[in-house]
Amino acid sequence: MKKTSTDTVDFYKKIFKRSEPQLEKLFFDFLRFQSISADPTFRPECKRCADWLVNFLRPLGFQVELWNKEDAPIVFATHMKAGPKQPTLLIYNHYDVQPVDPLDLWDSPPFEPKRHKDTIFARGAQDNKGQCFYVLAALKMVAESLKTFPINIKLCIEGEEESGSKALHAILAKKKKELTADYVVIVDLGMPDAKTAAITLGTRGLVACTVEIEGTTTDLHSGSHGGLVQNPLHALVAILGQLRDASGKVCIPGFYDDVQMPSKAELEGLNMRFDQKKYLKEFGALPLGGEKAFSPFERVYFRPTLELNGICGGYCGAGTKTVIPAKALAKISCRLVPHQDPKKIARLIKKHIESLAPKGIRLKCIIEEAFGNSVRTKKSSKIITVLAESCSLVYKKPCQYIYEGASIPITAELAKISGAEVALFGLGLATDKIHAPNEHFTWGRVEKGAIIIATMIEKLVE
Amino acid sequence: MKKTSTDTVDFYKKIFKRSEPQLEKLFFDFLRFQSISADPTFRPECKRCADWLVNFLRPLGFQVELWNKEDAPIVFATHMKAGPKQPTLLIYNHYDVQPVDPLDLWDSPPFEPKRHKDTIFARGAQDNKGQCFYVLAALKMVAESLKTFPINIKLCIEGEEESGSKALHAILAKKKKELTADYVVIVDLGMPDAKTAAITLGTRGLVACTVEIEGTTTDLHSGSHGGLVQNPLHALVAILGQLRDASGKVCIPGFYDDVQMPSKAELEGLNMRFDQKKYLKEFGALPLGGEKAFSPFERVYFRPTLELNGICGGYCGAGTKTVIPAKALAKISCRLVPHQDPKKIARLIKKHIESLAPKGIRLKCIIEEAFGNSVRTKKSSKIITVLAESCSLVYKKPCQYIYEGASIPITAELAKISGAEVALFGLGLATDKIHAPNEHFTWGRVEKGAIIIATMIEKLVE
Repeated sequence: MKKTSTDTVDFYKKIFKRSEPQLEKLFFDFLRFQSISADPTFRPECKRCADWLVNFLRPLGFQVELWNKEDAPIVFATHMKAGPKQPTLLIYNHYDVQPVDPLDLWDSPPFEPKRHKDTIFARGAQDNKGQCFYVLAALKMVAESLKTFPINIKLCIEGEEESGSKALHAILAKKKKELTADYVVIVDLGMPDAKTAAITLGTRGLVACTVEIEGTTTDLHSGSHGGLVQNPLHALVAILGQLRDASGKVCIPGFYDDVQMPSKAELEGLNMRFDQKKYLKEFGALPLGGEKAFSPFERVYFRPTLELNGICGGYCGAGTKTVIPAKALAKISCRLVPHQDPKKIARLIKKHIESLAPKGIRLKCIIEEAFGNSVRTKKSSKIITVLAESCSLVYKKPCQYIYEGASIPITAELAKISGAEVALFGLGLATDKIHAPNEHFTWGRVEKGAIIIATMIEKLVE
Repeated sequence: MKKTSTDTVDFYKKIFKRSEPQLEKLFFDFLRFQSISADPTFRPECKRCADWLVNFLRPLGFQVELWNKEDAPIVFATHMKAGPKQPTLLIYNHYDVQPVDPLDLWDSPPFEPKRHKDTIFARGAQDNKGQCFYVLAALKMVAESLKTFPINIKLCIEGEEESGSKALHAILAKKKKELTADYVVIVDLGMPDAKTAAITLGTRGLVACTVEIEGTTTDLHSGSHGGLVQNPLHALVAILGQLRDASGKVCIPGFYDDVQMPSKAELEGLNMRFDQKKYLKEFGALPLGGEKAFSPFERVYFRPTLELNGICGGYCGAGTKTVIPAKALAKISCRLVPHQDPKKIARLIKKHIESLAPKGIRLKCIIEEAFGNSVRTKKSSKIITVLAESCSLVYKKPCQYIYEGASIPITAELAKISGAEVALFGLGLATDKIHAPNEHFTWGRVEKGAIIIATMIEKLVE
């Protein structure tokens, strides 16, 4: 008699419980690597983290290669013993994490994981080491209990997701054969609340830039020079103030030209209510930003954005320093929707910002390497159907379908190169403080995630 | 036969040359104190610097007291042996210095004075330790050669000029008797070029504030929250962008109400030509800031300003961090002219900025303690006449009369309390990089300054 899906879920639940102390220790080891990809200082930590992954996967029977060894390497692993009659599943995660500043707002050191009841605090605890780890735990459970994999498995765990996936972008075209698969699951997404698993049907794209402004050759005294010289801070403020209008609309000419709002089919079955009270409670503010002409639901999932991520210049310490700084800097990123092309948008941003530079100020607009297209997937595909069933069983309620405002820049290209059906999945919550101080994840989600992935692998057998 | 002024200049020139190595060593000792008053961390260094001044002055016969011992003390010294028939001269300097950041732009450590030919590099080398030191050198030369002072001397060397003169402001009213004098010389000003000494006929006033903005309770991911929440950086940019209009005019209601432009008498004999080419060469930019309706000369000496001194928020490091920061901050200062009242202007700024806060953003506008009125002096007064003669003799060309755009916040109150005729004097050059990395002064100006001050003291004898 063929094992039912419920049997499979129960089977992996028992195995997880049995291996729990060992798995927790392994997770903590994984979290300790300071694998910050944005800052070259941490390159050696990224390499050590990749090596740790190699040593985790080889004993499970995986063939493992490191791509782009010189930088933050991409860990590529395959287990193809199920043979050509069985499908091939490619799973994507990343082991790199965001920078940790402002460090003084962390309650415990970001790379010394700390567990309080079911919650584990560390940089990357959720994004993406937590979500990567339940995939690893699932693979360990399947390999150790079945002594092999019933389908062919490929893993791509990259080390530069948080800084633009530069190496993976560059290598993709050369690795078409290696990356070919029937299904791709991107495990870096979220769920609407702690009790409801979900599959994400779309993400936004990304483009980012840095604006550098320079006035004089040295900082000046604001008494002796105030009223005389162009102050780079005023120039920067004037330029940045022109990027959005009072209605929240982005003012870069051509920015909205290729925007396509979702079809009726894409909106079907979605819970489009946005809980403003819950948002206020969770984040301390009402969702009052962005384009006034659209609802919060539309603004975060279906509309493109332009957000300032940082501004720095002059003196911001205690007391007063009456200076006109020589330089100032701003960091900007845009989220994109179908069918905006990140490279085209980058050109429009650069051209517009450079056109706003006032006389007497030198301005540079540098497009960063964080690029990615918006993604849309098909709810009716096999991979999404199987994954949704596993989610529903583990969470004991119907899996939901949602959209995500964030980006996984590599997804669109990975889907194209692999030729696979794509599913976007994850157990992140909006309150996990990813990219912020005190990022956290729950051990309960590590367990549920591992069981979902293991069950999905068995259910994909032809 | 009474000594001519030329005799006096020659006399002190000889004495200076004889004491040169000893004086240079003393100057370097003075520069080594990290007497940054804006940052409480450096309080002990301010105290040590004040003690050094006490130990310098006592051997010259001065009675010395420290006022406000708990903070950066005010060094108050008197030498009253000339008796009631001779006038009393009060000299003002400050021993505190500006913060040193950005530290990485200094070519040598800011508190390890370095001499290259005639130039000495250090934080405070000019502002105001260099200018204070030639006063000290003058007093030492007079005391050691004449064995006393021919007039009564009072010194007020404060330790908080760079952070608002809080203690001195607070104590002034209680020290009327101590500070009473016939003449006050404020030695913290500049000269138009290295070959021309000058007396400054007026300074601008000062008021400063910090704007703190808070959106959410934590930093947020700009993908998951972009388009949803009010971004504090956008709110800050929008507010700061409304403080001046496109013509450079300050847009705070009532800001210009009490502004009085100079009379014909005040402008008489001034060289009002502003050398734009020289400015470009010295500072790397043309003087294109401020109010377009006024000339550079008017903008820097006779018009009030509003300048951003710092903006900080979010991520400004290498690469990309797609964050919506929870908080952002800006530092603002205004230079004031007759008859703007700093306290009134502070109220107007605070009210206006607070009125600009958008819904969903918490804003605080904190008025800093750096307060001061604009000052105007009388060219025909005895102290200015005598000082101008000393300058002309030492620099071998007629002393000029100029205005200054910067502020010495305590001047107006000190003039009032002392009941004295005021002279504003100094040998600073616009290129000395005060408040900036690589601040410097020349030993030649220490020498000339000492001779001017010593000569002036002898010429004030009744």
